[in-house]
Amino acid sequence: MKILHTSDWHLGRLFHQQSLLEQQIELLQQIVEIIDQQAVDAVIIAGDIYDRSVPPSAAISAFNDFIEEVAVSRQKTIIAISGNHDGAERLGFATSLLKQSNLHLVTELPQALEPIVLNDSATTIDIWCVPFHDPLQVNNWLDTDCKEFNTAHQMIVDRINAERNPAHLNMIVSHCYLDGASESESERPLSIGGADRVDWQLFKDFDYAALGHLHQPQHKGMEHIRYSGSLMKYSFSEVNQSKSITLLDVNEKGVQNIQQISLKPSRDMRVLKGTLAELIAQAEHDPQRNDFIQAILTDKQAILYPMAKLRAHYPNLMQLRKEQLEHIRKASDTSGQEQLKKADSELIHDFFTEVYGTPLNADQKASINQVIQQIEQEESES
Amino acid sequence: MKILHTSDWHLGRLFHQQSLLEQQIELLQQIVEIIDQQAVDAVIIAGDIYDRSVPPSAAISAFNDFIEEVAVSRQKTIIAISGNHDGAERLGFATSLLKQSNLHLVTELPQALEPIVLNDSATTIDIWCVPFHDPLQVNNWLDTDCKEFNTAHQMIVDRINAERNPAHLNMIVSHCYLDGASESESERPLSIGGADRVDWQLFKDFDYAALGHLHQPQHKGMEHIRYSGSLMKYSFSEVNQSKSITLLDVNEKGVQNIQQISLKPSRDMRVLKGTLAELIAQAEHDPQRNDFIQAILTDKQAILYPMAKLRAHYPNLMQLRKEQLEHIRKASDTSGQEQLKKADSELIHDFFTEVYGTPLNADQKASINQVIQQIEQEESES
Repeated sequence: MKILHTSDWHLGRLFHQQSLLEQQIELLQQIVEIIDQQAVDAVIIAGDIYDRSVPPSAAISAFNDFIEEVAVSRQKTIIAISGNHDGAERLGFATSLLKQSNLHLVTELPQALEPIVLNDSATTIDIWCVPFHDPLQVNNWLDTDCKEFNTAHQMIVDRINAERNPAHLNMIVSHCYLDGASESESERPLSIGGADRVDWQLFKDFDYAALGHLHQPQHKGMEHIRYSGSLMKYSFSEVNQSKSITLLDVNEKGVQNIQQISLKPSRDMRVLKGTLAELIAQAEHDPQRNDFIQAILTDKQAILYPMAKLRAHYPNLMQLRKEQLEHIRKASDTSGQEQLKKADSELIHDFFTEVYGTPLNADQKASINQVIQQIEQEESES
Repeated sequence: MKILHTSDWHLGRLFHQQSLLEQQIELLQQIVEIIDQQAVDAVIIAGDIYDRSVPPSAAISAFNDFIEEVAVSRQKTIIAISGNHDGAERLGFATSLLKQSNLHLVTELPQALEPIVLNDSATTIDIWCVPFHDPLQVNNWLDTDCKEFNTAHQMIVDRINAERNPAHLNMIVSHCYLDGASESESERPLSIGGADRVDWQLFKDFDYAALGHLHQPQHKGMEHIRYSGSLMKYSFSEVNQSKSITLLDVNEKGVQNIQQISLKPSRDMRVLKGTLAELIAQAEHDPQRNDFIQAILTDKQAILYPMAKLRAHYPNLMQLRKEQLEHIRKASDTSGQEQLKKADSELIHDFFTEVYGTPLNADQKASINQVIQQIEQEESES
């Protein structure tokens, strides 16, 4: 049997105020192509289908189209759990009727003890689906008193283990943060100040753990305890990650092969670095200039309207930084503060030059330095 | 076969900022009881399940619980269309999988040509479901150029008629405004300034037309062209309506009997009229003092904090009116304006008496009249 593991689609997500839905739909289409090419039998989505609990209706339509193509037209099984971004009540609508079909949406904790069964002539796989939960929800369900995510998740796994049929293969699906795994900037903490990490050893006795939440594809502890990673890059910190789906080849002896298949967005996310002039010159020969771009400008002087100037060449320029300022901002010691003060007058000088075409003369410089000193004095007195 | 027709649940509706969900859930439970008592086979919901396109998750849970009880536990068929208040994309999620079960959510126009078939040994009923639509949506679908709701709906009915099997009974479900039917204050216009009325004659050749939108139970044109009316009263203009569901008894010859079965809310909606003292005295002997109340006070003098005083006895007092002011407000001729001016000084007099316990003396009255005159003069000059 071939099982495809994906997660963290975040349909409907905005990136610097721009909708990513068009790209997301393209990537869902790539997943459908992989399903065809690889003759996939079932798809597991390990949470965060949507980016927020009340997704825009276009995001719902996108998921619905995927269901139409995969579960209706191709008659493949889809198994999905709710993540911390999903609204469990909304996603959970009519699920007890849907489970009679081949779409399994698991959004309530008690459903974790009702495995979804995949079968072929030789193999039976019980898939235990644990929707995202915090300790409070587990306490409400099991009448326990867990404070930490790890203990709460342990409680659930203990109950699953008590129900397991050793003659079957057993997989678990969960949306959680494995202690020691690599995080990305685009994830939202599961708990503010709480102990939200879970020990990978919880999952070691399953034939496979299909995890969601962390956006970088990775395994932790053992090969078969895996995050598929997100559908696409959701922050500039992820530019060097290769986003993918994870494909499992399973027979009666267990998971025989684990393969990552890359997803190729038509519009990638990249960081470009150079002077404004260099970046503009490069654009002409850049076939991917429609990518989502973060530009780091290395110009020493101030530039008027750099965003507009660069956007004329990179239409999806999302963020602009100045390397010089980055360095200064990062300096947190006294010398950094001094540098910052020095930078103030230099910045004003550059700005003046850019706007009026001529540099400040000595008198003008002196006046400006006087104003800066006045401000500093007022600040130190207040 | 027994078919229950209901509509306009408006789950999640607020009434004077207060949620009605508790009452709505009680009434859905009454519908479940009627289904049991009458051995109902199928339930038709003719639109406006929710009050808005993004309903609160508690409203979604309420509908989900109804589905669990009726379609899952009791294995009855549910057929629902989207109304003008529902978000069709949201309500339409996973419907092509759900229709394999006994829950049919019809939210897209092309589905109007795919009847839902109810069967028993003797009878086959084709139920044609027309989700709420405006002329633009029909034009997009059929590449036509309708301006009015009536022509647009006619287009759909023509297509249904072309598909009809004369050997079957044929019912139609639609969410529309029949020309000449009685409206209530709590309905939202289907179109602002548009021609939103539909001719009842469109439906005359069907064995039954299960309509939604108008909140008063009624038939129009012919006995079998009916609005079930809303789940409960949604405005004080509906206090004298009896809300109900409509129950059809159908055999192979057609609809044999149409019966309205009342829904009895534990908290009704009522209008009380009298002086503050009278209403407070009545409350003691009023077993239904928890009802949603509109009070019309007939007191001649001003009263301080009447809302708070009355709410101590009628906890769900929603609205308070003064009969005296009602009369004055309704007067639109010159004598009415005169009366209003006279009323200003009287009101101030009453207010003073209420606050200080003694009436205004002659000097005070004169001063106040002077101020009123000044204001009037300034108003007429400005």
